[in-house]
Amino acid sequence: MQLFYSSDISENTLLLTEDDHRHCTKVLRKKVGDKITVTDGKGNKFSCTITEISRNHTELLIVEKERVLISRPSISIAIAPTKNMSRFEWFLEKSTEIGIDTIYPILTKCSERKVLKTERCKKVILSAMKQSQQFTLPRIHELISWKEFIKIDHPSPKYIAYVDRENNPLASQCDGLKDVLLLIGPEGDFSKEEIDQAFANGFKAVSLGRNRLRTETAGIVGVQIINGVIDGSR
Amino acid sequence: MQLFYSSDISENTLLLTEDDHRHCTKVLRKKVGDKITVTDGKGNKFSCTITEISRNHTELLIVEKERVLISRPSISIAIAPTKNMSRFEWFLEKSTEIGIDTIYPILTKCSERKVLKTERCKKVILSAMKQSQQFTLPRIHELISWKEFIKIDHPSPKYIAYVDRENNPLASQCDGLKDVLLLIGPEGDFSKEEIDQAFANGFKAVSLGRNRLRTETAGIVGVQIINGVIDGSR
Repeated sequence: MQLFYSSDISENTLLLTEDDHRHCTKVLRKKVGDKITVTDGKGNKFSCTITEISRNHTELLIVEKERVLISRPSISIAIAPTKNMSRFEWFLEKSTEIGIDTIYPILTKCSERKVLKTERCKKVILSAMKQSQQFTLPRIHELISWKEFIKIDHPSPKYIAYVDRENNPLASQCDGLKDVLLLIGPEGDFSKEEIDQAFANGFKAVSLGRNRLRTETAGIVGVQIINGVIDGSR
Repeated sequence: MQLFYSSDISENTLLLTEDDHRHCTKVLRKKVGDKITVTDGKGNKFSCTITEISRNHTELLIVEKERVLISRPSISIAIAPTKNMSRFEWFLEKSTEIGIDTIYPILTKCSERKVLKTERCKKVILSAMKQSQQFTLPRIHELISWKEFIKIDHPSPKYIAYVDRENNPLASQCDGLKDVLLLIGPEGDFSKEEIDQAFANGFKAVSLGRNRLRTETAGIVGVQIINGVIDGSR
């Protein structure tokens, strides 16, 4: 099944976004009368029939609407974007495929990337959502400073992963029943001060395994571990 | 710690490979007398002093040799390389970081990639091993056909992951005490015949989670799940 996206939905009709319009009509050569499946990224699945194809848009009639609600704890990752943007985009793509709800890009003391094109990130996430046939779009926030991030009153449980062989494994700390927030540092790791501030704000130290992982790998591994614990507790 | 690699080791001295020689002397500007750490990728860690830098090689005196043996079950993944080579290289890099022992690239019925430059793969694996500061180099075999692969008498437990919502989760099937082999299909999945042949040869069907994953993501997720089970059973 090929899944399309629309953010322009009325009672019985919807319009594909420009990218999807092009993919649907130019690459897949769909015609008026063909049936396709569309999501709004908000948990809805629309079975549609193409009613009109013009130069810049594809219009569809909604034949059936299904609510695809997956009731499970949410997974949030706060992560310092990597200097190499393609590495961060891989984190976004892979964590979306595996299952993530919210991403907070953060600017830490050792961060090498100080600006982030959030629109580009959203495209990567949207594409991965469609590709992995999910109906809920993960949310990515704008890049915020460590100072701002740590001031937010995130509910527990919340964890911080950094390089320390003494930390307990994330899988053993997490019960899979509550929403989880995991904090992943930059390639140069968190500063001592940042770790102390995280502790003071209720974050618990965890380990993601025996090896030293790159930032984007740590993010993917964290998302996979939390999903595994949630699946195992159901 | 920056880790270097050598495959040219005698009693008390060793030579860096050409890539590492360049990185050591041109990028990091190490000089005669500087100390560096080198591995042979066979579980040995050498503390060395640079004794000679010439145009094409760096020669070192071995000051101390340490055996870094991690006694744990081995993880093998048999996987169909993706059409897009960079996706397969990401699998190699990430699975090396997380922890893998052996990779069997396989040519299945739906494989889109029919040739594989194994030397290029080895470079990616070597680089990831050094970057994640491990001392044992994962082994990658040459690309082999499904027919040849399935004839090999692999010991159990061995698993096959394919798209089927009824399969049991890999984590629940694996005990973390024995060497594991996991089979990951191409983007078009295994054929019915291939799945039947795998069953006939002792492979058990497993699931890697609730979402449909790309081939390279399935490989990384599989490696992470097995590592998690092994860590949890120690």
